[in-house]
Amino acid sequence: MATVTILGAGAMGSALATPAAAAGNRVRLWGTWLDGGILAELGAGRPHPRTGVAVDPRVELHDAGRLAPALWGSDLVAVAISSEGVLEVVRRAAAALAPGTPLLLCTKGFGRWPDGTVDLLPVLLEAALPLARSCPVVAVGGPCKANEVAAGRPTAAVFASEHGEAMARAARALATAAYRVRCTDDLAGVEAAAAAKNVYAIAVGVCHGLTEAGGQPWHDLAAATFTQAVAEMRRLAAALGGREETVLGLAGVGDLEVTSLSGRNRAFGARVGRGEPPGEALAAMAAAGQTVEGAPAARLALELAGTLGGDRPASLPLLAAVNRILDGHPDPAALLAAAVLP
Amino acid sequence: MATVTILGAGAMGSALATPAAAAGNRVRLWGTWLDGGILAELGAGRPHPRTGVAVDPRVELHDAGRLAPALWGSDLVAVAISSEGVLEVVRRAAAALAPGTPLLLCTKGFGRWPDGTVDLLPVLLEAALPLARSCPVVAVGGPCKANEVAAGRPTAAVFASEHGEAMARAARALATAAYRVRCTDDLAGVEAAAAAKNVYAIAVGVCHGLTEAGGQPWHDLAAATFTQAVAEMRRLAAALGGREETVLGLAGVGDLEVTSLSGRNRAFGARVGRGEPPGEALAAMAAAGQTVEGAPAARLALELAGTLGGDRPASLPLLAAVNRILDGHPDPAALLAAAVLP
Repeated sequence: MATVTILGAGAMGSALATPAAAAGNRVRLWGTWLDGGILAELGAGRPHPRTGVAVDPRVELHDAGRLAPALWGSDLVAVAISSEGVLEVVRRAAAALAPGTPLLLCTKGFGRWPDGTVDLLPVLLEAALPLARSCPVVAVGGPCKANEVAAGRPTAAVFASEHGEAMARAARALATAAYRVRCTDDLAGVEAAAAAKNVYAIAVGVCHGLTEAGGQPWHDLAAATFTQAVAEMRRLAAALGGREETVLGLAGVGDLEVTSLSGRNRAFGARVGRGEPPGEALAAMAAAGQTVEGAPAARLALELAGTLGGDRPASLPLLAAVNRILDGHPDPAALLAAAVLP
Repeated sequence: MATVTILGAGAMGSALATPAAAAGNRVRLWGTWLDGGILAELGAGRPHPRTGVAVDPRVELHDAGRLAPALWGSDLVAVAISSEGVLEVVRRAAAALAPGTPLLLCTKGFGRWPDGTVDLLPVLLEAALPLARSCPVVAVGGPCKANEVAAGRPTAAVFASEHGEAMARAARALATAAYRVRCTDDLAGVEAAAAAKNVYAIAVGVCHGLTEAGGQPWHDLAAATFTQAVAEMRRLAAALGGREETVLGLAGVGDLEVTSLSGRNRAFGARVGRGEPPGEALAAMAAAGQTVEGAPAARLALELAGTLGGDRPASLPLLAAVNRILDGHPDPAALLAAAVLP
């Protein structure tokens, strides 16, 4: 029996409490300064407002002020904070982390070094910790929807790390009959795929929006877009030091498929496909508390591609098309067709 | 300007008349003995009962008795007959085919040699023609829904042949701004993917049926199933002499995506996922004139895998699971989870 602390009581953080508790661990769920309302619901035994699932009553709930107590003696710390807040929370948590504690990173996306350079989150996260508190980062990828993980439906997760022992420990602590874990040492491949899939799910969502708007299917374009997305995710992963084979498995094809089936990035794309200007769609979703991680990630990915040398941006026409769609190009269907058809 | 004859006035045959006519060809559409009602509708200028699209008025319609006149002087013959009827129609057509006329094969699936051995259709088709009438076969794959091709929505097709000149001629004759064609010499890879994707779309459909039945998403399982399907299609294609890279492009990932989005194989899987016994679902769909090509293909693919040597069947657990689902196994979700989760 291990002690597992989950930082972040949003959808994915709370969801992870399901396998963590089912696997027999002592589980602590810590909420950020924005999660007070959620903790109140969970503490009253009511379902999480986003996953619709109540947490196991044995899970200890800790509010924002109790970060250090939530971390004391923890064997494994899962980090499930939004990409904007994650580095700050980890910096604050550092003093209470025992050196060597594995950090299971659920947050996806790209971030910036202090000089403005774009990079993948795990690299930035490891650098954000003081050397004396050095903790091995284990990233989580694969097709894992928070509401399904919370409900205990069958899910394949991919854990990725260059620290094999820490990764094995994290997998042993969390894997259950429903929440299955595949381990890989290809951290760069998993992270590149996990960050990029949000961008490409927007493009697939645009096709579904075209279908909804006209009442006629645009599935051929959606499927060609999906295929091009896989090809570009392979190129991005390889350019970032990852393996193409990783993109062709659960962490790439699988995660892109699930992200194209539902979620905010697809929903945002669908609004644009139905004719809503992207700025208005983003504002409406933000007002409803819905972050579209793929929108800023599209900008950062294009910027990153520009620094990778060679003709990288030219080999990513769909990424460029998503950026032009975000700019408000009046004909997203024509942009996608030009980017993805032979 | 070429003369293009399309054999079969079903959904895909009639649909191909759209790019064929738009590209400026003289187009003849021949209907089988079962297509009389369709030809009457099209001849009256009304929409095709399955695609919802009327054919260009310049398209010449030929009924079943006019097979030879439909073929006289044709530069390209597209074959869009159901997999049960295709060999018989091609045998009847042989005498009227000028030697060397490219045959564009839209029919997908597996068939049998006279001794019962299972093989891919293009191989059987070339063998069915008398030597003196030898015609190069060009297979069509990629994410192409008939109703979308008919309506002129953007579509990426893949033409595959070992006969480069015939393939180039077919592509030149049919490609338009909306109907785009990528050519490859990997006939085996395209055919293996095209036949197998119907089988695997049933499995993805089961997950969508579970979602519809319970009102709760099973997207994580659907995405893991999709990923495993891609892995098994790679293995099948390679075992049949095709290239894995073909499966990773439009002809594999793309066609599986579009087939998982809509169509009869997905619909059949969804019925089973909602709890309908597979035999009853197949019978109900057959009564409505809906052939589920993936169901017999699942049987044939497993039989074929058994002849490919090594531990081939053992490396195709999802194919085996679809066969057990077709046998009426009471818990399809558990079967899929066991086959596709790590």
